[in-house]
Amino acid sequence: MLLIAFYIAIAAEAMTAALAAGRRNMDWFGVCLIACVTALGGGTLRDILLDHYPLVWVENPYLLLEVCAAALITIPLARLVDRLRWPFLLLDALGLVVFTVIGCNIGIEAGVHPIIVIVAGMVTGTAGGILRDVLCNDVPLIFQGELYATVSMVTGGVYYVGLIGGLPGDLMAIIAIAIGFVLRVLALIFRWEMPKFVYDREMRK
Amino acid sequence: MLLIAFYIAIAAEAMTAALAAGRRNMDWFGVCLIACVTALGGGTLRDILLDHYPLVWVENPYLLLEVCAAALITIPLARLVDRLRWPFLLLDALGLVVFTVIGCNIGIEAGVHPIIVIVAGMVTGTAGGILRDVLCNDVPLIFQGELYATVSMVTGGVYYVGLIGGLPGDLMAIIAIAIGFVLRVLALIFRWEMPKFVYDREMRK
Amino acid sequence: MLLIAFYIAIAAEAMTAALAAGRRNMDWFGVCLIACVTALGGGTLRDILLDHYPLVWVENPYLLLEVCAAALITIPLARLVDRLRWPFLLLDALGLVVFTVIGCNIGIEAGVHPIIVIVAGMVTGTAGGILRDVLCNDVPLIFQGELYATVSMVTGGVYYVGLIGGLPGDLMAIIAIAIGFVLRVLALIFRWEMPKFVYDREMRK
Repeated sequence: MLLIAFYIAIAAEAMTAALAAGRRNMDWFGVCLIACVTALGGGTLRDILLDHYPLVWVENPYLLLEVCAAALITIPLARLVDRLRWPFLLLDALGLVVFTVIGCNIGIEAGVHPIIVIVAGMVTGTAGGILRDVLCNDVPLIFQGELYATVSMVTGGVYYVGLIGGLPGDLMAIIAIAIGFVLRVLALIFRWEMPKFVYDREMRK
Repeated sequence: MLLIAFYIAIAAEAMTAALAAGRRNMDWFGVCLIACVTALGGGTLRDILLDHYPLVWVENPYLLLEVCAAALITIPLARLVDRLRWPFLLLDALGLVVFTVIGCNIGIEAGVHPIIVIVAGMVTGTAGGILRDVLCNDVPLIFQGELYATVSMVTGGVYYVGLIGGLPGDLMAIIAIAIGFVLRVLALIFRWEMPKFVYDREMRK
Repeated sequence: MLLIAFYIAIAAEAMTAALAAGRRNMDWFGVCLIACVTALGGGTLRDILLDHYPLVWVENPYLLLEVCAAALITIPLARLVDRLRWPFLLLDALGLVVFTVIGCNIGIEAGVHPIIVIVAGMVTGTAGGILRDVLCNDVPLIFQGELYATVSMVTGGVYYVGLIGGLPGDLMAIIAIAIGFVLRVLALIFRWEMPKFVYDREMRK
């Protein structure tokens, strides 16, 4: 079940990334690359940081084809995808929490400290979007107050605490995904935001 | 022969990267670093993704000296290098296809899936320029429609298909480099471009 | 002693990074992430390039907590931290040279070429700031003429030459840190700058 959600989330991430690339008038290759970085970049960065090889898409290259196909299909369907804003926000929320749980599992397998398990989940869930914004030359959207990384942290925390408490992994995955998903959707509906640190004076100079 | 082409291409990449740094008024250290990232970044990223250590320039640090020397020599010669626009575009095209073939070889040695062999070639050929543009705070030039990554993909594809077909590696390297080089030069002359995905509406908001 | 200086420098880097994040109106999560990347990114990049695992903060996750704590404490204290400009410039200078010596040590342990030992020190000392500027969507400050990477190179060079000359490591660490620190402070006082490469004409196009 986690695997099916993973493939759906990968495709959804690729499609929203393709729209971001289209907004910058990128060519088709750029669209595919931005889609790959967004959909697979978080897991790739996590695996590099944990020395966990081979990378997911090196072992299973058809993931690259899926991502590129989803990205290229988005080009003729752009107006439609755009009108489906809410379904895509929900798929994006699903992707965030599913990626987080998968990332935590990799961390647990690697036998790292609990803090790093949560970090592995957060990197998997959020780094793809950060890399997309760096390549598109934006200040990463995720730092602008949306409750996004926090959702990832809560999801990973719930999942890990449940596992430590002896609950079965499948059950905890479902519970953590449900809690994280609802939290993210509530944050979208009620426009919950992280507090910002607004600071004006230049220090250097 | 591949090795000689490699050293020439490295130096050419370093010199055009130095001009890019000069256009942003960087200091001499910045010039060297941008040159290193552009000339060696593609191979470095490929090796990190494939877990292929030690990195080329860690094993052979004189590459770093070559790159920095080529970059610093560019400073007094900037106007000359600029006037030699076509020779440098040709060297850049040579670099693209040579890097691609070398990257495919590393992928083949690592025993990865054919798709990943092509990807390894493309990363080697194109990632240096992407990293340069990220450090210079540009939207990567490569996404703006030039036939560049496509040339790398075709070169890698021809090379790999030939090897699979049982042709000797040296011959196929020459054939693939020749085809890729001619394709890139034709693209430059006739201004062939990838189709772009132009999309205006903001989705998030 | 190196370890105490390391912890102090990490906290100082995190605090100045938090101010940089605040100037871009980032949320609290962004503040923590920018602080982590700035304070720990140099060592992380060095370890990835040298295949030196596990990463420092994966092995010792409390470093992440220290960095986030230092970053979050900066938010209410921003005006105070800003007024303490000189103490922070001094701590930043200390961090630069201490990180450099630690990076050289990792390089020496890994048994790499002397050039790579110096590069390992420079990456450790300077890459965190470069990554911070990339995430904040700036052209990296370090390329704008400040005598920063040069100080790192001199510090690493003095340290390594002393070790080769048979002097004890502890003594050489103190000497190299003192020389590098004084050089950086003199550069700040007298506004010493690297020469810049200013170049105006567009080559491509």
